[in-house]
Amino acid sequence: MTGQSVWQSRKQSLLAYMQQNAIDLAMITSPTNVYYFTGFHCNPHERFLAFTLDAATGEEKLYMPLLDLPEAEKHADSRVAVPISDTDNAYEVLKKYTTGSERSIGIEKEAVSVAKAERLQSAFPQGSFVDLEAFILSLRMKKSEEEIAKVRTAVHMVEQVVAHTVSRAAVGVTEIELTAELEYQMRKLGADRPAFESIVLTGARSALPHGVPGPYKLENGHFLLIDIGVQANGYCSDITRTFVIGEPSPAQRDIYDAVLTANKAGIAAARAGVPLSAVDQAARDAITQRGFGPLFTHRVGHGFGMDVHEQPSVSGQNHTIIEPGLLFTVEPGVYDPIVGGVRIEDDVYIRADGTADVLTSYPKELTIIGG
Amino acid sequence: MTGQSVWQSRKQSLLAYMQQNAIDLAMITSPTNVYYFTGFHCNPHERFLAFTLDAATGEEKLYMPLLDLPEAEKHADSRVAVPISDTDNAYEVLKKYTTGSERSIGIEKEAVSVAKAERLQSAFPQGSFVDLEAFILSLRMKKSEEEIAKVRTAVHMVEQVVAHTVSRAAVGVTEIELTAELEYQMRKLGADRPAFESIVLTGARSALPHGVPGPYKLENGHFLLIDIGVQANGYCSDITRTFVIGEPSPAQRDIYDAVLTANKAGIAAARAGVPLSAVDQAARDAITQRGFGPLFTHRVGHGFGMDVHEQPSVSGQNHTIIEPGLLFTVEPGVYDPIVGGVRIEDDVYIRADGTADVLTSYPKELTIIGG
Repeated sequence: MTGQSVWQSRKQSLLAYMQQNAIDLAMITSPTNVYYFTGFHCNPHERFLAFTLDAATGEEKLYMPLLDLPEAEKHADSRVAVPISDTDNAYEVLKKYTTGSERSIGIEKEAVSVAKAERLQSAFPQGSFVDLEAFILSLRMKKSEEEIAKVRTAVHMVEQVVAHTVSRAAVGVTEIELTAELEYQMRKLGADRPAFESIVLTGARSALPHGVPGPYKLENGHFLLIDIGVQANGYCSDITRTFVIGEPSPAQRDIYDAVLTANKAGIAAARAGVPLSAVDQAARDAITQRGFGPLFTHRVGHGFGMDVHEQPSVSGQNHTIIEPGLLFTVEPGVYDPIVGGVRIEDDVYIRADGTADVLTSYPKELTIIGG
Repeated sequence: MTGQSVWQSRKQSLLAYMQQNAIDLAMITSPTNVYYFTGFHCNPHERFLAFTLDAATGEEKLYMPLLDLPEAEKHADSRVAVPISDTDNAYEVLKKYTTGSERSIGIEKEAVSVAKAERLQSAFPQGSFVDLEAFILSLRMKKSEEEIAKVRTAVHMVEQVVAHTVSRAAVGVTEIELTAELEYQMRKLGADRPAFESIVLTGARSALPHGVPGPYKLENGHFLLIDIGVQANGYCSDITRTFVIGEPSPAQRDIYDAVLTANKAGIAAARAGVPLSAVDQAARDAITQRGFGPLFTHRVGHGFGMDVHEQPSVSGQNHTIIEPGLLFTVEPGVYDPIVGGVRIEDDVYIRADGTADVLTSYPKELTIIGG
């Protein structure tokens, strides 16, 4: 280690990429990527936020809403800050600090809207836009041990939350009550926020992969599916566990067992050197062999990190070879519209030696609540 | 009333606009706008979601992730649903249901990314993109009484939450504890989610307009600033109140009084026929006259509705004339880095007769907590 900050090292990677690809100016505008390169987290809403890096001079600027300047001064290199008030035109400010002759401008094409690109175009009349998104996502995709330490903290928090939620689950309690309770625990444990909209579904509703908690009561014989995550110190966790209220039916046991087998098969397949599609395939085969193939309606997993959905996609279509540093979920599910749905989701990190480190440790054998 | 559904009437407005502007195909992809036109709410994450309307045939399609189909069938017209599985290429599916000869394609230019536009371009090689965003925002900007009824519900919930939070506020309680408590109450009262990241700030931290709650304890002599909202049934509320813990100092009273005067002046200026900038000006003048002008670092308000930030912007630059149906916040603030910040925010609806209906009714005279 050189003692160089993580922000410096990321900016140097960006600069090297720009120089290799003849990109004159990088204009990073997604709040998450601005954080990734500067350490400054800001939700600008519709105001203007951008971190820029000039390849020729190495000069950095951090354009931000004036009202966020006090926060920026605490977290980022304030020498590069360019505060923009609500009465300023951000694109006029931008013109003041750039030459206007920049030709190749790197933007995040997935994050920048068509409207914003048109406004940028007017500020850089000679500029054409090239994509930085894939490069930045590939940088972000490989997590350092420092980043994984933050993910572990977020996993530890969410597992405590799952345990607490299970302790409160009982016949008659509603999905919404459990959700309120578990999000309260997230905050109490120091999470900044849920990593995504918490999913707590009971009975046949557990077969809705994106269902929203409602005023539905837990009943005997119900599945209880909990898919939650927290964001803490900028990093996410994401876990799903499915429980049964009271004695499971043979159909419930059958689905649960198929999904658990698939979850384990997916994790067993996850290691450096094999394609991501092999992880999907291993899990999918286990479910197909049990006859539930048509009821497994999504890919087996997704990368995550600062965002809860990041690269890589763990799907049958992604033949990218797994490398050390990747972090992704393995979350097969079977959704029977009558019996209900089961999903079991773990978080997997690929260590430097290429083996899988399963960060989630909450028990996943079939667990009966109450009854 | 014709008995026509609100969705039908919105789609007809869109169709009329398309015909007037020679737009062949509308491709609506922001989840909020898809909900606005179809009644189907879906967070597709990185999956493909689009509502399309063909101007020539009037044909509608609702492209959605296969895994959300059960929800769609409950909430939208399922005859137009085109489910897309994770193994499908959404753009190939799109090609199947369109002719490829569409020339003028309406998109939301603020919502569609440059990358998505490039993918759409390949599906519609003859197409050029025109903006529907401004038109849709102008439709959404004028709220019906039915929509305002939902906003009132969200306002009523959040005011109960403010009251509850105040009852829990005391010396030694932290910002995070109050935030956890108030978000729990939101859920308990039936809110779907906070409308935005809840802001609870104490002491000098109240001067951070976008500060994030931290492990900071309330102390005697502190300001306590609470800026929160809920989303319920698809509509938002947004309120700010600032309290003092114990006896206020003369400096605190002075700032509070200036902001309260500005809040009232802004609301008094809000009525049909005057420009939005007059609302900003009235509030700003009140603060400037008290010598705090440089410490009021943002516009006075923003529209809201399904999103917490919508049209219109209530700023000195927006000279648009106020019309019946507009819904916006009036929220002047003064942020003194030493003494702390005060913001007082109300929600204002412009009635059919042009007068302002202040939806928020939580008391706003200086209130002392404990001490």
